[in-house]
Parts: sequence; C-alpha cells; structure tokens
Amino acid sequence: MSNRYNESKLLVFNTLSRKKEVFEPLKSPFVGMYVCGPTVYGDAHLGHARAAISFDLIFRYLKHLDYKVRYVRNITDVGHLENDADDGEDKIAKKALLEQLEPMEVVQYYTVRYHKNMDQLNVLRPSIEPHASGHIIEQIEMIKKILDEGYAYEVNGSIYFDVEKYNASHHYGILSGRKIEDLISNTRELAGQSEKRNGFDFAIWKRAEESHIMRWPSPWGDGFPGWHMECSAMGCKYLGDQFDIHGGGMDLLFPHHESEIAQSTVANGKPPVRYWLHNNMITLNGQKMGKSLGNAMSLDDIFTGNHPLLEKAYSPMTIRFFILQAQYRSTLDFSNEALQAADKGMKKLFAGMETLKQLKTDKNAVSIDAKAIEKACYESMNDDFNSPMVIANLFEAVRVINSLKAVDGRLQPEEFEILKNLLQHFLFEVLGLNSEEGTGNFALVDGLMQTIIQLRQEARVRKDFTTSDLIRNKLGDLNIDLKDGKDGTSWEVR
Amino acid sequence: MSNRYNESKLLVFNTLSRKKEVFEPLKSPFVGMYVCGPTVYGDAHLGHARAAISFDLIFRYLKHLDYKVRYVRNITDVGHLENDADDGEDKIAKKALLEQLEPMEVVQYYTVRYHKNMDQLNVLRPSIEPHASGHIIEQIEMIKKILDEGYAYEVNGSIYFDVEKYNASHHYGILSGRKIEDLISNTRELAGQSEKRNGFDFAIWKRAEESHIMRWPSPWGDGFPGWHMECSAMGCKYLGDQFDIHGGGMDLLFPHHESEIAQSTVANGKPPVRYWLHNNMITLNGQKMGKSLGNAMSLDDIFTGNHPLLEKAYSPMTIRFFILQAQYRSTLDFSNEALQAADKGMKKLFAGMETLKQLKTDKNAVSIDAKAIEKACYESMNDDFNSPMVIANLFEAVRVINSLKAVDGRLQPEEFEILKNLLQHFLFEVLGLNSEEGTGNFALVDGLMQTIIQLRQEARVRKDFTTSDLIRNKLGDLNIDLKDGKDGTSWEVR
Repeated sequence: MSNRYNESKLLVFNTLSRKKEVFEPLKSPFVGMYVCGPTVYGDAHLGHARAAISFDLIFRYLKHLDYKVRYVRNITDVGHLENDADDGEDKIAKKALLEQLEPMEVVQYYTVRYHKNMDQLNVLRPSIEPHASGHIIEQIEMIKKILDEGYAYEVNGSIYFDVEKYNASHHYGILSGRKIEDLISNTRELAGQSEKRNGFDFAIWKRAEESHIMRWPSPWGDGFPGWHMECSAMGCKYLGDQFDIHGGGMDLLFPHHESEIAQSTVANGKPPVRYWLHNNMITLNGQKMGKSLGNAMSLDDIFTGNHPLLEKAYSPMTIRFFILQAQYRSTLDFSNEALQAADKGMKKLFAGMETLKQLKTDKNAVSIDAKAIEKACYESMNDDFNSPMVIANLFEAVRVINSLKAVDGRLQPEEFEILKNLLQHFLFEVLGLNSEEGTGNFALVDGLMQTIIQLRQEARVRKDFTTSDLIRNKLGDLNIDLKDGKDGTSWEVR
Repeated sequence: MSNRYNESKLLVFNTLSRKKEVFEPLKSPFVGMYVCGPTVYGDAHLGHARAAISFDLIFRYLKHLDYKVRYVRNITDVGHLENDADDGEDKIAKKALLEQLEPMEVVQYYTVRYHKNMDQLNVLRPSIEPHASGHIIEQIEMIKKILDEGYAYEVNGSIYFDVEKYNASHHYGILSGRKIEDLISNTRELAGQSEKRNGFDFAIWKRAEESHIMRWPSPWGDGFPGWHMECSAMGCKYLGDQFDIHGGGMDLLFPHHESEIAQSTVANGKPPVRYWLHNNMITLNGQKMGKSLGNAMSLDDIFTGNHPLLEKAYSPMTIRFFILQAQYRSTLDFSNEALQAADKGMKKLFAGMETLKQLKTDKNAVSIDAKAIEKACYESMNDDFNSPMVIANLFEAVRVINSLKAVDGRLQPEEFEILKNLLQHFLFEVLGLNSEEGTGNFALVDGLMQTIIQLRQEARVRKDFTTSDLIRNKLGDLNIDLKDGKDGTSWEVR
C-alpha cells in the first residue's frame, strides 16, 4: 500500500499484543473493520459518542490514506441481557414491557434517535449496519459448528460455551490478560444454582421461557442468541473468517471480545481479528458516569443544556472537538471548563482558516516551513491516531498564519497551498469537524451578516448613530454579537 | 372509538370491496398498518415520494384522531427479482455485482439516502421498519405451513405456490379482480421451460445457484425467499394474523398483494387484512415515468433542479404540497407549471397564518363561522383522506383572514382560536407541511431580513438611494428577492 505519507508507517496499539504494531491489512488496499455499536434501549450518551467518534476518526483516516474500508458497525437489538450477564432480562424486551410496545418499536425509536445524534456529531455512517435480530440463522449456524467441534454443551435447550475445554488447547484470556484461575475464584457459585458446568462458561443460545417475547425456532427449541454470538456471526459474514480491525469500548474487552475470539476461533479454525482496538471511557468531574450515580446525561441533554450539571448547552461540534482533544486510549474527563476551552480552541482553528484566506501569495516571501507542519500532522496520525497531537500541529499552523498576517500578510504560493490543504484535509476530512453547524444555512446567514456589517460601517462613516444603534439592538435580539477588530468586524452567535 | 369529530365517520376506499367503507379497527383504539417500502437498489424517485406521503398523511390523520397506530413499513433487501418476476437476477445482488460491493453495502447506501429524502419530505418514520433479509426464519416458518396445508410444491429446492389449487377453494383475484382463466391465457409457456406446474404459480422460496451471493440454509437447501413472502411474514409477525390496513402503490396490487392474501390466508387460516389501500401513480407531462423512457428523475434531481426537464429546483415541501393537492387515489401529472403553482399556493397558506397573527380579537366582532370551515376540513379527511378538499378549505380560511385584515382586522376570540388550531392541526400536523425548510435556520434568517428591510425603508425615507440600491444588489447576490406591497415588504429566496 502506497500511502500519501509512507515515509512514516501507520502504527496502531493492538490490545492483543499490548503494544503498537505496524498496520498491515490482510488484503491491502482493502481493510475490514468491525466496531460494536449500541444496544438500542435508551438514548445515546457520552460513552456512545466517544466510541463512535474514535472509530469515525480511524475510518476517516484510513480512507484518507486511500484504503478501501468496509466498516461494519452493528445494532444490538436482542440477546443483550441486564448486567451483561447470562441471567436477567433482555434489555430491549424489558424496555418494551415497560413502555407497552413491541420490542422492535423500541429498537426503531432508539435507532432513529441514535442516527440523529451521530449525524449531529458528523459521524459517518458505516458501510453496513447489521441488526443482531436480522442474523439469527447465521448465529445458529455458528453455534452448530461450535457444538460440532465439541466446545459447547446443551442444557435444557440452552447452549453454553465450554471455557475450560477451550482453555486447555487455546488461551481464554489472551485479549484481556485474565487468567482462568482468577475467573474460577471470581465466579464460584452455590451448587445447583446454574445450568453451567463452570461459572465462567457463557451462553451462546438461551432457551426462551414461555413469557419471553423475542424468540426464534432452533434445533434446540425456541430461544434467542447469547449476546457475544452476534458480533462473531456478523463480523464473519460481512468481513470473512479473518479481518483487520475489531474495535469497541474498553468496557467490552471482557467478557464480550474475549468470548468473541473463543467462539470464532473454534468455529472457523483461526483467530478472527488482526488488530483489536479499544477506546477509553469518559468520566464526569473525575467520577464514573452512570444512572445510579445521578450524573448520567444524554447527548440531547448536552446539546440543549438541559441538565443541572451543565452551565450551558454545548454544540455537537464542541463535543466532537473535546473528544478528539484526547487520544482515543486516554481517559477523558468531562467538565464545563473543559468544554468551554474546547469550544474556544475550535473557534480559533476556524478563525485561522479565515485568516489564511486573507493572506496574499508572493514568490519572494520568507519560507515558514509549512511542509514540516504537514509532516508532523501525518506523523501524529500515524502514531496510533494521535488526534490531540494533530490538533496541536494545527494550532501551530494557525499561529504561523496569524504572525504572517501581523507582518505583511504574504507567503509563498506553494506554502499557501500546503496550509490550505492541511486545514482542509485534517480539520474537515480527518477530524471531521464542520463550521456550519448550529447556524443552519451558514452561507446565507453569513451573507446577510456581511450586508448588515457593511450598512453599519457606512452609517458610522456618515455619523448616523441612530442607524448603527438600531443595527446593534436588532442583532442583540437575535443573540448575535458584533466584534470590531483592526481587521474589520466579525460576528458570532452567542 | 370517540374521534374528535365523530359527527362524521371516517370512510376509506377498500380496494377489496371497490367501495368506501366505514373504518372500524379490529381492536380500537389500536390500529395496525402495513405499507410496502422501497427496494433499496437505487435512489428514491417521485413514485416513492407519493407512496410515502400518501400513507404518511393517513398515519398522521389516524394519530390525530387519537388512534394508537403501529405503522410497519419494510425495507426490501432481498428476493425482489428483475421485472418483479420469478426469474432474472435479484435487483440488489445485480447492483452489488456492478458496483463490486457486498449486497448489504448497497442496501445501507440506498437506505440511508432514502431516509434522508423522506426526512426532507417530512415523512414520519414508521413504528417498525423491518428488513426482508432480517426475517428469513419467519419466512421459512410460513413456507413450511403453506407446504403442510398442501398449497405449495417443491421442485429442485424451490417452492412454488399452487395457485390453481388455492383458487379451487378460495378466490385468487379477489383483490385485483383478475380471473384465473385470463391468467392462464396470459402466462402460457413453452413446455419444459419452467419448473412451475402453471405459469401463474409464484415462487415462495428459490434455490440459490452456486453463484448467488445472498443465500440462507433452509429445509430445502440453500436459497432465498420469494419477493411476496416477506410482507406476509413481517406483517403477521408485527401486526398479527389479521390487521387493519395494508397499503402500497397500485403497481403492487397484482401480483404482489394478491399473492400476499393467498399466502397468509393459507398459512393463518384467514384473510390477513381488513382494508387494502392503494395510491395512484405519477405521470410526467402525461407520460409514464421510467428509465427506458428517459424521463426518470430522482428526488435529489428535483430538489437540486439537476435534470433537463426541470426549469428550476423544487423544494421538498413544494413536492409534498403538490402531491397532497391530489387525492391519493387520483392520477397526478408532474410538470413545471403544476409545481410552480403548488409553490405559490403553499406560500399563500403560510402567509395567511402570518396574517392571522396580526388580527386582533374582539368579542363584538362579526362572526365568520370558523366552526363551519373546521367541520369541512374534518369531513374532507373523513372522506377517504381527501387532502385537496382540506387544502381548498384552508384556502377558504385564508380568504376569510385576508378579508378580515382588509376591513378592521378584528374577529371573535373563540373564532381566532378555531382558525389558529385549524391551521396548526391541518397544515402542520395532518398535512405535515413545515415552513422552515430550505432556508436552514428560518427564524434567524428572517430576523436578519427584517432588520435589512427596516434599514432599507429608512434609507428610502431619507432619499439615500445609494444605500437602498446596495441592499438590493447584495440580496440579489444571495438570491433573495424583495417584494413591496401595500402591507410592507416581504422577501423570498429565488
């Protein structure tokens, strides 16, 4: 694969090896990437945003490097039980019962809202978005293979994966670093309380009790798939027995991804994934977020400012920029201060783009070594998608632009092109930011504002302060502030 | 069911009886409605818009009458073969092969675009939007029942519905009015060319050839469901063995809906649907629309004006209003003149709403019999969803509002409330129009425009024609026209 910047190779941190590795796709230029999507029984929150944006960044950068990426992100609409365990109610079915709806009405409602939020965050749609409930046959077929290989057993119409047997010839814990001995002591159970041979075994098919709504016929009677099965079956169906990248939040590392590896390895005879990538979590003022802790907030809450812990509403782009200001594997703490700083920082970058447009090219201008800044951006992305370093380099570019403007506003034509492309490629394409959100039709609004600013300027020249005051008051009613600087007047929505 | 306006009962034209019938849901206040959605292998065109808007109108009105509607509209992503026949390639698989994509990438791409178009047209999302490929098990189970009942036969791994046997005890043609004798003469085939016993038999399961990409295991070997099966299976799964309304375009009446009735009647022992509703087609300048006729245009073409037959771009709301100006069972001819007339008409209604806001209430004002206009709106909707009659009544309301404005601008407080609610309920809720599309953040843009209009007015007063010319030119650059009338100046985007 010839990257645009193959001077430095793309390194990705592989959870499997616990180190950064050179990224080499199985069938370059094709890349297969699977990421665990939401369980659609509630509104999307910050954790959903971080996972989606982290892998959106990776998807966008791989495409920028001219890879042909098939990106699969699933919708979990069945089989995900409470507490991510083998017992308890199905999360979707429970919500459906509460709301007196058919489970698929719950799924539709929250899927549409999830898509709306992701569109607001400028997260690209994946290439395929399969539903777990739409792939029951594929899951049953895979369970049959696992049974045929002898790594699962049936009890009363449920099928459990035999972790002890698997671990005798493979390594259950290869991804999470857990040891089966520790698992044994952590899952000791009272005798007779479970159908499982061992507490760490997990269900790959569950018998449906009479009252269970979501059920399908199977060779073992009516039931539904275990949570971990869907990703193994759909990853294999759309990306093959082995594919390049599997991503998800760190909270999914164990048991979900560990179990996926075991299932797929047994069914297909080889480990399913080359590179396992995991994004870190978001804390709120240093605390874990959760409904029981009273600090959970949905993305809609944040976008509207409708939560007691929020000082104001924060736009989707502010949230996106805030998330990209940390590398995806770092912890990230959510606070009003951090968001307001993110908002300021982002505006500074966009202002820098505008300033660049005002500069003039001159073959004899002093070089600013724009090439070095561009190189640094690629090196940052190639170092495990280090978006905060990219942002730091873009700030450096803006600093240079502003200092040129302060001197004589001239730079070399080639360097102008490099800076223009740099901002275009990284700010819009790779980081996926856009400056038009929040104001609707930005070009039209800006056109009207420029007209008004000019009218105000002319009123001032003729000392018509009635008119200039009228303009300021009218704009104030619309929550628009004018700022007079030495380069003219700018405007912003409060 | 106590409707808001139960003085007149809701009548719907039932294709099954070929007459208008009083609408009485099986389990009022619950209503189950199934509508055939798109086969997602290409961009949505006017036909998609008319079907979606017709049943969106019905969905909205039933909800307005306080029915609890479960609205299922499917996505066809497998089994729909070329020419809607039993032979030929699968439409999705063919497109996938052409584009060198996995079929589900094609499905995702066009489904996302379909949703975008429907959102632009302000079509509400259905309660459930099931994919055909996600319900293979349900289809296989239904095929098994049909086989068990003896109304289907297997040939080389394909299953065909036995129309002749069905017609001996039931009536194949009950919906479309076709006679099996006519079908026989129309489907006479050369002997040995088909696996079917009779040309009018239809596949409910097709054997997948080696090269066929979309395939699932079944009791009859690897294959895929026939096109008509999905709607029978998904309708039954989400709405029960019998439900209230089944809708779709008239082009689906035969063989699709006729075959659905036969399948479901055999599998469930009773006819599936109480009321069959069909929307009519759209012609273009009097001609049928189609790719081979060179006059096919996508919704995106229309919204951007990017087609040689279009004089300009037409906004999604103009298209919506144009479609609602015909009753859903009438033919509708698409032309530049008709669209421009629709655009004008719609703007007149919105202008009327603004004028209403300027009126003053006065207990002693003369009565305008607002109640009669409201009653006429309900009677129109209750007469098989006669949206053009509703629109005519709303124009009457606007005529009254304008004449009040011309006299002394006063009306009775109760009548003010009736007119306000009438416009709110019918224009926004039931017809589903909104005035803010096309200009993004309409309130902000309008606020800026009002400021500019005032500045222009003041410039004129002081005979400062330099300023007023500047304003006209600047707005011209932004494609905004000003119109001076006796009630002041209005603006519109060209």
